[in-house]
Amino acid sequence: MSDAAASPQVLSGAAHRFPIRVYYEDTDAGGIVYYANYLKFAERARTEMMREAGAPHSDMVNRFRCSFAVRHCEVDYFRPARLDDLLDVETRILELGGATVDAEQLVMRDGTELARIRVRLACITETGRAVRVPAEIRAAFNEYHKSQERA
Amino acid sequence: MSDAAASPQVLSGAAHRFPIRVYYEDTDAGGIVYYANYLKFAERARTEMMREAGAPHSDMVNRFRCSFAVRHCEVDYFRPARLDDLLDVETRILELGGATVDAEQLVMRDGTELARIRVRLACITETGRAVRVPAEIRAAFNEYHKSQERA
Amino acid sequence: MSDAAASPQVLSGAAHRFPIRVYYEDTDAGGIVYYANYLKFAERARTEMMREAGAPHSDMVNRFRCSFAVRHCEVDYFRPARLDDLLDVETRILELGGATVDAEQLVMRDGTELARIRVRLACITETGRAVRVPAEIRAAFNEYHKSQERA
Amino acid sequence: MSDAAASPQVLSGAAHRFPIRVYYEDTDAGGIVYYANYLKFAERARTEMMREAGAPHSDMVNRFRCSFAVRHCEVDYFRPARLDDLLDVETRILELGGATVDAEQLVMRDGTELARIRVRLACITETGRAVRVPAEIRAAFNEYHKSQERA
Repeated sequence: MSDAAASPQVLSGAAHRFPIRVYYEDTDAGGIVYYANYLKFAERARTEMMREAGAPHSDMVNRFRCSFAVRHCEVDYFRPARLDDLLDVETRILELGGATVDAEQLVMRDGTELARIRVRLACITETGRAVRVPAEIRAAFNEYHKSQERA
Repeated sequence: MSDAAASPQVLSGAAHRFPIRVYYEDTDAGGIVYYANYLKFAERARTEMMREAGAPHSDMVNRFRCSFAVRHCEVDYFRPARLDDLLDVETRILELGGATVDAEQLVMRDGTELARIRVRLACITETGRAVRVPAEIRAAFNEYHKSQERA
Repeated sequence: MSDAAASPQVLSGAAHRFPIRVYYEDTDAGGIVYYANYLKFAERARTEMMREAGAPHSDMVNRFRCSFAVRHCEVDYFRPARLDDLLDVETRILELGGATVDAEQLVMRDGTELARIRVRLACITETGRAVRVPAEIRAAFNEYHKSQERA
Repeated sequence: MSDAAASPQVLSGAAHRFPIRVYYEDTDAGGIVYYANYLKFAERARTEMMREAGAPHSDMVNRFRCSFAVRHCEVDYFRPARLDDLLDVETRILELGGATVDAEQLVMRDGTELARIRVRLACITETGRAVRVPAEIRAAFNEYHKSQERA
C-alpha cells in the first residue's frame, strides 16, 4: 500500500445537505434555538452523511471496532434560529487525516448562514485509543466526495 | 426466607427532597420548562435518593448486575416552572414490590405543587429481563424510609 | 352556532405517521433511548400532525393568541429503542373536547410497539388561561380526520 | 466618565467553581457524556458565577433590558466524563470588552481536565442588537474578581 493515505487529503466538493425542523425541544426561554443544540443538529447531519457515503457508524462499530469521537469543535453564531424554522445543515469534509477527519458544517435558513461549526473527529477504539481511519471507511468518504463533485 | 418480601410493602414517611435550579437548557420558546424535562428532574432526584439510601445505581450495576428501568410514568402539569426558579423535587416510594418500585414525585416551588409524577420502575438484568429487587437494595430502601420517618 | 362543538367528539380513523431516526443525542449510557426523549418524539409528531391538518401552531399563536399546553401525559415503555433505529410515531386524536384534546401516540419499530403515550392538551391563552379550541382549528382537525379515514 | 471601560480589561484571579453531577440524561450510548452537553454544564456554571457576582441575568433582563448571547464557543475534549461523575466547572473571565465578555471554562474531575471551553458572550438588547455591557454589571464583575483574588 502506497502511503498516500498517510498524508492528509483535502477534499472539496458539493456539501451534504440535511434538513432539520426546529421544535419546542430545541428552543429556550429566549425564544431561539439553545446554543448547545446546534451541536445536536450537526451530529445528526454528520451521521446521515456517513450513512449516505456507505459508511454508517454501525459498520464502524460492528466491523471495525472503532468509532468517531469529537476532539474539538467551534461554533460561530451569526443569527438565531427560531421555533418552526426549517434549517439545512451543509456538511463538508475539509480534510481526511490518518486518524482524524476535519469537517465544516453550516446551518442555513433560506440561504442565510445562521451558524458555522467546525469539528475535528478522531477515530478511536472501544477503549478510547486513537487509531487510523479504516481504509474502507476512507475509501467510502473519497468515493462519496467524488460523486458529490459530479452531482 | 419468609415471603414477606414477596408481598408488596407500602412505605410512607417523609419524602426525599432534592433542589433543582432551572437553567436556559430546561426551558422552551414558551418561556417555561419544556414538558419532557420534568422527567429529567425526576430521574436526578431518584438517583440522589438511592445514593442517600446507600443503594447507588453503580452498586446495582456492579454488584448485582441489574438496574432500574422505567416501565410507566405519568405526569400531571399544574403550573409551569420558569427560568431561574429554584425547585424542590420530593420523592416518596409508594410501594416496594417483588421486582418493581412505585414512586411519587412532586415538583414544588415555594410550597406550591407544579407537577406530580408517578413512576413504576422495574428491576432488570443487563439483557433486559425482569428480576427481583436484590435483598440488599430492598433492605437499604426500608432502612432509609425508617430513618426518614424518625427525622 | 349549534353546540355540537361543546360535547366531546370521539374521533377515530387512520393515524398520522411520522418517522424519527434515533441519534446519539437521544440515547443514554444504558445504550437505549432515554425515557424522557419519547416525549420529544411525541411532540414532534403532534406538531407535524397539526401542520398537515392545516393548523400549525404558529397559526394558533399568531391568529388566535392561544396554544396547546400538555396537562397530563402517560407513557408505557414496552421495549427500548436503540441508536440508529428508524421509528414511526403514530398519532391519533382520541377526543376533541371543548378546551382539550386527548391523543394517543404509539412509538413503533418495524410494526412492533415500543412505547405508548397518552396526552391531554389544553388550549390556553398567552397568560395561561384555559380557553375553547378555536372553531377553525377544531374544523381543521375534523377535516383532517375525515381525510385520513378516506385514505 | 473616563474611558477605562472602553479598553478591554484582562481579568485574572481565582476561578469560580461549580459542581455538576453527571446523570443518565447527560450520557449517550457510547457510555460517556454527549459532546453537546458540556455546553449545558458551562452555561449553568456561568449563570451561577453571575448570580454570585451580584449580576444575575434576571437583573440584566429586568433592569437593563439586555442579556448575554453566545457569539462563539470552542470546546477541546480531552477525556470523557461518565455517568455518576462529580465534575467541577471552573469559570474565569478572560477579558471584559465594551460589549463582549470572553470566558474560559474547564470541566474538571478530581483535578484532571476533561474539557476546555472558550466562549465569547455579546451583550444584546431584546431585539438582538449589540450594546455595551451595563456599567453596573461591569462593576459587579470587577468587584467579584477582586474578591476572588483576595480569597
